[in-house]
Amino acid sequence: MKKIGVLGTGAVGATIGKKLVELGYEVKMGSRTNGNEKAVAWVKANGKGASEGTFADAAVFGEIIFVCTRGEFALKALEQGGVENFKNKTVVDVSNPLDFSKGMPPSLYISNTNSLGEEVQKMLPGAYVVKALNTVNCEVMVDAKKGGGDITMLICGNDANAKAEVKEILAQFGWNDILDIGDIKGARSQEMMVITWVSVMSTLKTPHFGFKVVKP
Amino acid sequence: MKKIGVLGTGAVGATIGKKLVELGYEVKMGSRTNGNEKAVAWVKANGKGASEGTFADAAVFGEIIFVCTRGEFALKALEQGGVENFKNKTVVDVSNPLDFSKGMPPSLYISNTNSLGEEVQKMLPGAYVVKALNTVNCEVMVDAKKGGGDITMLICGNDANAKAEVKEILAQFGWNDILDIGDIKGARSQEMMVITWVSVMSTLKTPHFGFKVVKP
Repeated sequence: MKKIGVLGTGAVGATIGKKLVELGYEVKMGSRTNGNEKAVAWVKANGKGASEGTFADAAVFGEIIFVCTRGEFALKALEQGGVENFKNKTVVDVSNPLDFSKGMPPSLYISNTNSLGEEVQKMLPGAYVVKALNTVNCEVMVDAKKGGGDITMLICGNDANAKAEVKEILAQFGWNDILDIGDIKGARSQEMMVITWVSVMSTLKTPHFGFKVVKP
Repeated sequence: MKKIGVLGTGAVGATIGKKLVELGYEVKMGSRTNGNEKAVAWVKANGKGASEGTFADAAVFGEIIFVCTRGEFALKALEQGGVENFKNKTVVDVSNPLDFSKGMPPSLYISNTNSLGEEVQKMLPGAYVVKALNTVNCEVMVDAKKGGGDITMLICGNDANAKAEVKEILAQFGWNDILDIGDIKGARSQEMMVITWVSVMSTLKTPHFGFKVVKP
């Protein structure tokens, strides 16, 4: 099993990291500093297979790396991780360029003719960036049943092998309806969808739902 | 049955107008000029119940008015229709602020902290604007089965009575899963969702699909 780096100590990083450890992967959580309080607590809670370090430590360790920071820190985390440390690796971008500064609903500070997924790929030209999981709540990310069991996960990216690798992990997370919408430009769609997600979440008063693509 | 005005002679206006005539409504299609070639052909094809005229004629005639022009013409059509002619009426905004000028995927020329639906409401402060139907192909709009039968139609608007009125028409179009996401700001979500729709359409190579909100 490949070693995995998870960048970010928030709910998304902790939840994805925990699930990966449960699945038997070795996971290193990365943050700005060694010994980050939340990362240390996460390691303690997840035991064998879990470790922590700087963004660079996690990037060097991981053969696959999940970007789970808040959107506004994602590019900085990659920079601190050392761009060269991501070379030839699959990078799963889970982050969203959400701006809550103007109240609800949030807006996207990158959108339309660009996306955070594309910016991640531009910053890591030697890596294979796959946008995935960003369209659902983190508990649903690692347990598709919690979102209704049969919802659709959109993914995109420029490299077919990297997408195949991510699909395998998604399958281990319970995803059985994965739709590959093409190259990394699809991140525009996947990130815009999050705004619709927030509206529906506010209406249903639960983050435990998802969108299923249905056909006749 | 209330009289209905339909602004726009394109596929969306023609399809919605045709369905409304079939349902027994009197429908006037409005365009920039009386005797517009496409409007006249539409009247001929749809017979009794169908008529045509200027945007103002359709606005005066309609007790409910559907805005079915291309996004970039919507506000101009309302202006030409005479803002006072929409007063106290339900206005269903089906238009999308799509910009195809930079190639695929299209972008939205209004988004994030504003939407075309909100602009329509601002231009018609005396009307009750409901954003609806803009998230699916026009054949699916009037026949939900064509999209998979059980997909979710998001609607929003500031007036509960107007939304109830629109829901009744949607039910006649076959929609049995309608989700009211709140006030007209929800148009931001509904319009952004169209970009996701375009990505999925390009992937599936058919416009006959939709997104269903699923819960556990």
